[in-house]
Order: sequence, then structure tokens, then C-alpha cells
Amino acid sequence: MTLKTGCHRLMYTLTHQSSMLGFRSRGHLLLSRLGNLDSKTSSTSCSWFSTGSALNMRLVQFTDLQGGPQKLGVQPQQDGEITDISSGSGKIPNDLIKLIQGGPELWAEAEKAAAKSSIKAQAKDVKLLAPLTAPGKVICVGLNYRCHCNEQHIEPPHEPMFFSKFASCIVGPTDNVVLPTVSTKVDWEVEMVVVIGKQCRNLKPENTMENVFGYTIAQDISARDWQKGRNGGQWLLGKSMDTFCPLGPAVVTAGDFPKGPHVLPLSCSINGVKKQDSNTDQLIHQVDYIISHLSHLFALLPGDIILTGTPAGVGVFRNPREFLKPGDVIDSEIVGIGKMRNPVVAPQ
Amino acid sequence: MTLKTGCHRLMYTLTHQSSMLGFRSRGHLLLSRLGNLDSKTSSTSCSWFSTGSALNMRLVQFTDLQGGPQKLGVQPQQDGEITDISSGSGKIPNDLIKLIQGGPELWAEAEKAAAKSSIKAQAKDVKLLAPLTAPGKVICVGLNYRCHCNEQHIEPPHEPMFFSKFASCIVGPTDNVVLPTVSTKVDWEVEMVVVIGKQCRNLKPENTMENVFGYTIAQDISARDWQKGRNGGQWLLGKSMDTFCPLGPAVVTAGDFPKGPHVLPLSCSINGVKKQDSNTDQLIHQVDYIISHLSHLFALLPGDIILTGTPAGVGVFRNPREFLKPGDVIDSEIVGIGKMRNPVVAPQ
Repeated sequence: MTLKTGCHRLMYTLTHQSSMLGFRSRGHLLLSRLGNLDSKTSSTSCSWFSTGSALNMRLVQFTDLQGGPQKLGVQPQQDGEITDISSGSGKIPNDLIKLIQGGPELWAEAEKAAAKSSIKAQAKDVKLLAPLTAPGKVICVGLNYRCHCNEQHIEPPHEPMFFSKFASCIVGPTDNVVLPTVSTKVDWEVEMVVVIGKQCRNLKPENTMENVFGYTIAQDISARDWQKGRNGGQWLLGKSMDTFCPLGPAVVTAGDFPKGPHVLPLSCSINGVKKQDSNTDQLIHQVDYIISHLSHLFALLPGDIILTGTPAGVGVFRNPREFLKPGDVIDSEIVGIGKMRNPVVAPQ
Repeated sequence: MTLKTGCHRLMYTLTHQSSMLGFRSRGHLLLSRLGNLDSKTSSTSCSWFSTGSALNMRLVQFTDLQGGPQKLGVQPQQDGEITDISSGSGKIPNDLIKLIQGGPELWAEAEKAAAKSSIKAQAKDVKLLAPLTAPGKVICVGLNYRCHCNEQHIEPPHEPMFFSKFASCIVGPTDNVVLPTVSTKVDWEVEMVVVIGKQCRNLKPENTMENVFGYTIAQDISARDWQKGRNGGQWLLGKSMDTFCPLGPAVVTAGDFPKGPHVLPLSCSINGVKKQDSNTDQLIHQVDYIISHLSHLFALLPGDIILTGTPAGVGVFRNPREFLKPGDVIDSEIVGIGKMRNPVVAPQ
């Protein structure tokens, strides 16, 4: 099997149902059925994606530095001025998931509010929260960068591999990652996150991207001694400990990515030393395919998020191994979305 | 290693952190640390459990037969009269999770409302919904009945094994289970469900049960060809397809179980033929231990649910194998909680 390291797509010939689907994208006929796996592959260009919603907003959730009520704002630039769109209007909720659930009409109202609201805040005067507080699903794709498969000497999976994190482990883009008492092998994983905008089901790949609301960044913090060491592998537990999902700093709407999501440099540094340095063009299973695949299993709902996988450079596969310790600082960046900085602190 | 088939408890001597805890229950000193596993075992009596909240209520969520707004009610008996506690009062929410989140003061208000509300409904005039609409966590314990391990010829795990279902697959106690187009091996699993009542963290087993709000029933419907057959095992996907978690019919508060949750007959019938017939006294890892174990990893929050595992008799391990087909009817019962009846229908 040949896999291109840039854009490529795995094509499945799948058998045991009669739901043969013909997927056409840019002239490549992708015959796909969700059944048994065949190892045939094909490739497509990266640039055919529609860009999801037509919105152009970089949305943040925040409070005053002293706390107080959550607010929803538009912050066009990292560290720039924030326009508060929820406090001045009775229409716009202070919760981004509720805004997403409101659909295109409410999104248009949010754009109007961003244009006319005079309630402004400076970045230094606010605390950014995670831009999504309680997504219904936190879906994670494992082993989705070729370089990350290479560093652990395994073949990229023909079919995307999924796991989940509990939403209760989401923290904000400047919050502490608290090391748990029960692990000594806590690791970093920077990831691009897809935010679903509309309820969708049984999608062909070429119809998926209009269901994307936007993109953000996650750190898929992982206790390696639970993920793989306990009882044959407790991925869910090793990935869901409290504070194990820094998210943010903003959700940038799909309209801000005219070339689609597969051209974005992403990186992670620990204490200023770059550990992961890649690009979303290295994704094995791309966003449209992932959404299509999942949508044949269950409905994707507004506010659901998909962590699309991490590139090479995690601590557990370095030589010697490296794990997070109190006092470390995790910097995560995706160009076009923003930067997070999360301090690591001792167990509490 | 000797395991009693009735009440028993696995005792771990766990090493790699310095958080040695002394757990005492009924004179048995259970030395436990959440670290490496030791195979030493011990046993305790079943009856030492505190009974969680002092509430005595059997709570249901429902609508009129024609639909309309969700209501929260108290229904002391299956198929009996329902007292609507949310419609007549400004205090009681129409959402059980919000009631649970309100804490003991709001629970007391709910008891008062149940005693004095004159808004009654007959069972035949309402549609019961799942009693919990969107739990933050749907935690599932795998391989937690000795008989279920025996039927698949594997040793019971020393340490509980966890996975999750997405809450979006929850349906009500009379709703259809819709067979997905992507699976031909859909199976049943009746389970007792623990409903968490209070935020809790780092609990000793003897302090866990006061954090239990109550109990309900789930069908952990499972697409076996995804759970184990796809890409090495996609438990999350095989367990999370839409409609794969019938839940209900009621949440019965812990105060209604003076002998605790480990004495409850549970069964599952398909088309009137009993397939699973066991008792929660057969649980390998009991409720107090499961909660304690999880609480060292992350906070458990009000409304989180734990599906505690299924006994022997699932379809995939029968000879010959049996799977659900359109027209089947799944009956699930736990004595003291109630009964669910879910029809199985063809892919839609």
C-alpha cells in the first residue's frame, strides 16, 4: 500500500451491507461502503474543500479578570481587542455552543452584533475561557499523522481509529494542567479541532464541510501509563483526567480558511523548546473523510468537536523519554487560529 | 487468584505514587493505591453500604402522548399514576439532571412538591422519556460479571475496564432501537446504572455511596462487528450508534435501596424469551469500588452515569450466535427499578 505523505485518501471497498455509495470528489470516484475493509487507496487534491459556513469570526469566551459572568466575544487577532457580543444584546447567548445551535440566522445576528457593539475589552483585562464549555461529544482520532505513526514504528491505520475524552477535562487556553497523583507519565499532543456546526448524518465526503462551524486547538494531554499500561490499555481514562484538554484560545469560523483546514502549520513547545512542528497537510484521514465516516454511525450535532490527531514529537517516543513535570510550560499554536500557553503544576 | 462468585472485592497493592490510602470497610482493611496492580484479593460482605441520599423517590421524565414540553414527575410504581412536580412549581426544573445539580435543598423541595402537587397524569396518557437527557459522562464498565467473563472464556480483569458511550445515543424506555446500516451484529446487554448525585473526587470506598443519587436501567446496545472487528476494536463506535442506549424507565433514589444496590435481580428477554437472568450480587467490581477508583482520576459530577456491566447471556456468545433483527422486542428489567420495552426496527 502506498500512502502519500501529503493529501491522500484511503478508499474502502466495503461489503456486508447493500449501501454502496458513490462518492465523487474532483473527478475521483471514491467507491465506499462502510463494511469490511479493503486496502485499495487513492489520492485527491487538498484544495477542493468547500469552506464550511460563510462566517468570518474569531470567537472567544471570557470573563473579567476577577471572574463574574461568562461572555461571548469576537477577537479578530490573538491578544487584540475583544468585542463583547453577548452583553449588549438580548439575542446573542453568552455560550458559543448555544450560538452554534441557534443556526445561521443567529450566526448572522452575531455578525451584526460584532459590527455594531460598542462594548469592548482589552485582552489584558480579561481571562479567556475554553471557547466551548461542554461539547456533547469529544471525538478523538488516534494515529492520524504519518510522522506520529513512524515515531512509534507502526503502520498508519487503514481506517481511522477513534477514542474519546470526557468533556469535563476541558480547561481554558491559559489554565493549568494539573498533574494527577496517579500518573508519572503525562505527555503533550497538540491537535487541530473541528467544531461541528449543524446536525448531520450519512454524509458523502463532498457534502461534509458545509457542516463545519470552525476550528480551534486542543492539547490532548495523555497519561501514557494509563493509556497503554493499565489493564491492556485504558485510553479513555488516560486521556480524561481533570485538566487534560486545554482548548482554545478561539474558535475561528470555517469562512476564515478559504484554502480549507489542511494547510495549517501546528506546533507545540515545552519550556520554549519546539517538540512538535508539523502541518495539517500531513493528516492521514482528512476532515471531510472523518466527518463522513462518523456520520454513518451516529448523528453529529452542533458543538460536537473532533480532535484530529497529533503529529510526531510527543514525549513518550523521544529518546530519552520526556514527560511533563511541575513548572513546565506548554505552548500550542496553529497558524490562523492562535496560541495557547498552559502551565503544568503539581498534583493538588 | 481466588474469586468468589458472590460478593468479593479485588484488593490492589499499588506502588508508584506516595499516596498510600488505608480503606477500612467493615473491619477489612483494604490497602489501596492507584498504581501498579497486585493480584492479591480479599472479600467483604455486601451489606455494609450506606444507601446514598436519604431521598425516596422514583423519578421520571415525560411528555404528553402528543409531545409538548418535557415534565419531571414522581411515579412510585411502574405503570402507576405520575405526580408532575415541575409544572406546578417555579422551583422544580423539568430536567432531572438540573434537579440533581440543585443539591439536597432542591431535592427536599422536590419531595415537598411530590407530596402536595395535584397535577397528576396516568401512565397511559404520557410518553416516558429517558430519565436523564444529556449526562456529562456515560461511563461503562466492561467485563464486570463473572458469568459474562466465563461465557467468553476470559479471566475477570483484576482492575475494572472502562469505556464510554456518547450521550447522544440515549433514548427512552419505550423508544425504538434502530439497527444501523453499517452493522449486522447488533446485540443486547442489560445493565444497572448508577447516577452520581454530587461532585466528588479522591474518595475512599466507604465514602462513595453518599454521592450516589440513584439507580436506573440501561441497554448497552452493541455492534459487535465494530466493537471488536474493526481496526483492532472500536468499542466507542460500536457502542455509540444512535439509539444504542435505551435508559429508564425511572431513576430510583438510593434511599429506596436500604440493602444497597448489590441485591437486585436483573434480566433481559428478547421476544419474551429470557436471555439474561442474573443479580447485581454477581458484580465483580462493586459500585463503591468503581466510584472510588474513578474518583482518583477525575471529578465525578452530578448527573454522570455509570453503566456497571452486563451478565451472561448476550447474543454474540450464544451457540448459535444471535443478533437483533427488525421486529424483535427487547425487555429489560431490574427488580426495584422497573421495566423497559424497546422495539427493534430496520435501518432508516
